[in-house]
Amino acid sequence: MNDAGMSAREAARAAKEASFRLAALPAGRRSAALLCAADALEARRGAIFAANAEDVAQAEREGMNAPALKRLRFDEGKLRDVCAGLRALAAMPDPVGREQLRTELADGLVLSRVACPIGVVGVVFESRPDALVQIAGLCLRSGNAVLLKGGREAARSNAALFGALTEAGREAGMPDGWAGLMTTREEVGALLEMDEWVDLIIPRGSNAFVREIMSRSRIPVLGHSDGVCHLYLDAGCDVEMACRVAVDAKTQYPAACNAVETLLVHEKELHRALPAVASALREAGVTLRGDERVCEAIACEAATEDDWRAEYLSLTLSIRAVDSLEEAVAHINRYGSHHTDAIVTEDDAAAERFLSLVDSAGVYRNCSTRFADGYRYGFGAEVGIATGKLHARGPMGVEGLCSYKYLLRGHGDTVEAFQSGRRAFTHKRLL
Amino acid sequence: MNDAGMSAREAARAAKEASFRLAALPAGRRSAALLCAADALEARRGAIFAANAEDVAQAEREGMNAPALKRLRFDEGKLRDVCAGLRALAAMPDPVGREQLRTELADGLVLSRVACPIGVVGVVFESRPDALVQIAGLCLRSGNAVLLKGGREAARSNAALFGALTEAGREAGMPDGWAGLMTTREEVGALLEMDEWVDLIIPRGSNAFVREIMSRSRIPVLGHSDGVCHLYLDAGCDVEMACRVAVDAKTQYPAACNAVETLLVHEKELHRALPAVASALREAGVTLRGDERVCEAIACEAATEDDWRAEYLSLTLSIRAVDSLEEAVAHINRYGSHHTDAIVTEDDAAAERFLSLVDSAGVYRNCSTRFADGYRYGFGAEVGIATGKLHARGPMGVEGLCSYKYLLRGHGDTVEAFQSGRRAFTHKRLL
Repeated sequence: MNDAGMSAREAARAAKEASFRLAALPAGRRSAALLCAADALEARRGAIFAANAEDVAQAEREGMNAPALKRLRFDEGKLRDVCAGLRALAAMPDPVGREQLRTELADGLVLSRVACPIGVVGVVFESRPDALVQIAGLCLRSGNAVLLKGGREAARSNAALFGALTEAGREAGMPDGWAGLMTTREEVGALLEMDEWVDLIIPRGSNAFVREIMSRSRIPVLGHSDGVCHLYLDAGCDVEMACRVAVDAKTQYPAACNAVETLLVHEKELHRALPAVASALREAGVTLRGDERVCEAIACEAATEDDWRAEYLSLTLSIRAVDSLEEAVAHINRYGSHHTDAIVTEDDAAAERFLSLVDSAGVYRNCSTRFADGYRYGFGAEVGIATGKLHARGPMGVEGLCSYKYLLRGHGDTVEAFQSGRRAFTHKRLL
Repeated sequence: MNDAGMSAREAARAAKEASFRLAALPAGRRSAALLCAADALEARRGAIFAANAEDVAQAEREGMNAPALKRLRFDEGKLRDVCAGLRALAAMPDPVGREQLRTELADGLVLSRVACPIGVVGVVFESRPDALVQIAGLCLRSGNAVLLKGGREAARSNAALFGALTEAGREAGMPDGWAGLMTTREEVGALLEMDEWVDLIIPRGSNAFVREIMSRSRIPVLGHSDGVCHLYLDAGCDVEMACRVAVDAKTQYPAACNAVETLLVHEKELHRALPAVASALREAGVTLRGDERVCEAIACEAATEDDWRAEYLSLTLSIRAVDSLEEAVAHINRYGSHHTDAIVTEDDAAAERFLSLVDSAGVYRNCSTRFADGYRYGFGAEVGIATGKLHARGPMGVEGLCSYKYLLRGHGDTVEAFQSGRRAFTHKRLL
């Protein structure tokens, strides 16, 4: 194993050791560390901005495009946002140790289930330096040790931010090793192999990248690879609303995973809602690809089977006609990525059928799929959006970073006493 | 693909189709099906007992040992138990659709999180035919479609039980394909590859078997491979209690995953509690293996490094001296399998430190590790015990078989309205 691999192993081992102590800290200590972290970032603003300026200058020299440069830039506004985020997390009730269930199993024998951190979380994220602060903050709030791997292009910014966070951690009495920063591709490879120390990997990046991580690691991976989201226009939908929601869901930020890629239209709306929606979308710059019936109703390109699985992440939209709500649901459950899907309808019964039948992390009525986001859901922030059905589903905040354990407190109780019939279970729910 | 593989694919595809409808059935329908199932099993008792008698006769001819024969036998007592179990599940509140969270995101835009089934669960289980009924019942209660693969030696019994359950399902209006029975090893191989249709695999069997399943499948697997559980005798513990708990945890059912494999003893107890506990264990037939300090204190074999990782599943116990509670915790977190670990102590502060520092699904004070079980925890039954920290942890009942989804109900809301500042989030917690 090379040096990068060794240093990743050291960081992971230290994080595992730290994770036990982090989980057992008294309530309030993690909150204090979060406040300390916000103060430290503000105190070191000069060094952080200088490091970021170097990253930005190099990226400009290397020809980075404007949207990516905008994400890379860490300025006063971003500093204010991340510090406000850390202070909001500090003000949240501590999730660690929260009792979720309490049952008297028998006289004097009480079971309780309490939330606890997952342990060591490895996060591989894109170029935005503010993501480093958000992720470290969510992990600290939930008592998890964290191994961070950011983009190469943000290396100096990340190092400066990480330095401030770890100094704050030391000051606030966090155990050494609670956060580790990895900088090379080799370290990511090593990280994925350390199932002895790392409990969860959260990748944030392109589909291909997330899929590669999932296939390479034995460690559980939470996240989403695809965001193939749908909007279904039901028979009798409000046309003005359909236009508004479709335009927002497709164009408000087309590169987001929660943007809509396929529009499903009830056949009764092919000559009513569809022309209006298509014209609103075209005005917003969207290219349309339709199936046969759609191409007969409006002017658009012909869609192929591949279009139903495509995540365009751009101003292209596929459109398909369906004969019924059930056909729309079947299409979504078959071709979708179980991320977020919406119906526009005035019919309450149809809406509830759609909400119960669609097998996705988010199912919406009469609103844009773009609402699928931890901040908009009121979780403060998110480490990612999970499209699997185990553990967390949808935007994953502090709660998704917690597990639980069962504590049983007795007075010398044996199973034999119950097995032999001398004692009996009461199973009285206390909480 | 051979016939077995094809039939497994057909069953999995049908289960996936059924799972959407099963999840969307009105509350009460799944309860009715559970009652129907209990009635059907009682109505077909003659055929079921006859099928089981053939399995038992063949197993006897093939020289099956007595404990295995006892597990294979399905008699009046077991019928009564499984029917009582199904009726208890029917009486439980329906977990599907239970609202877990409700937040007003903004005026007229309400987010709610509701429990939903995971989808299709594949369970590969050991020879006990009553397990088939329990597992199918838990899946039906939680709205999951289920693919069952039982042991070859119980094939006739399983077919008879399965026939009664599916007939009951048809009568109660469950969607076709909600339960599938697989009988061959080839079908298990096919099952593990069907990540398109199967959402979760739960293996029940030997460590080697569970590990093999985990390494062969891309589908998430929940379960435990090892049960290396510990009992720690703290300084000043109640000696009589230590004896009682140690004997129960080791000998009440040594082959269970929640039986203790290693005893940790504070050095102050090497000449106080340890001799009494050792003598009680020896009287119960336990062979002891100790480290150097333990061998000086009591007569026992010498333990090697391998003993700290061994799951004996028999009347052998390893014993190690530790200098402190922290050393005991470090040993448990390093060598244990994160299943269930207990402390015997009279010191409240030490107990709470142990409960918070030990990283296991169950952490106990002053009681036997043998309590780690879904029935004893009051969950009715369990599909297995999970030792991972994602999704379910510990005994996994109906709640562990559920996921959730976010429903958002609006009136044409767009993200753009919030982004542009025309509207603001309220994030008012309604539930």
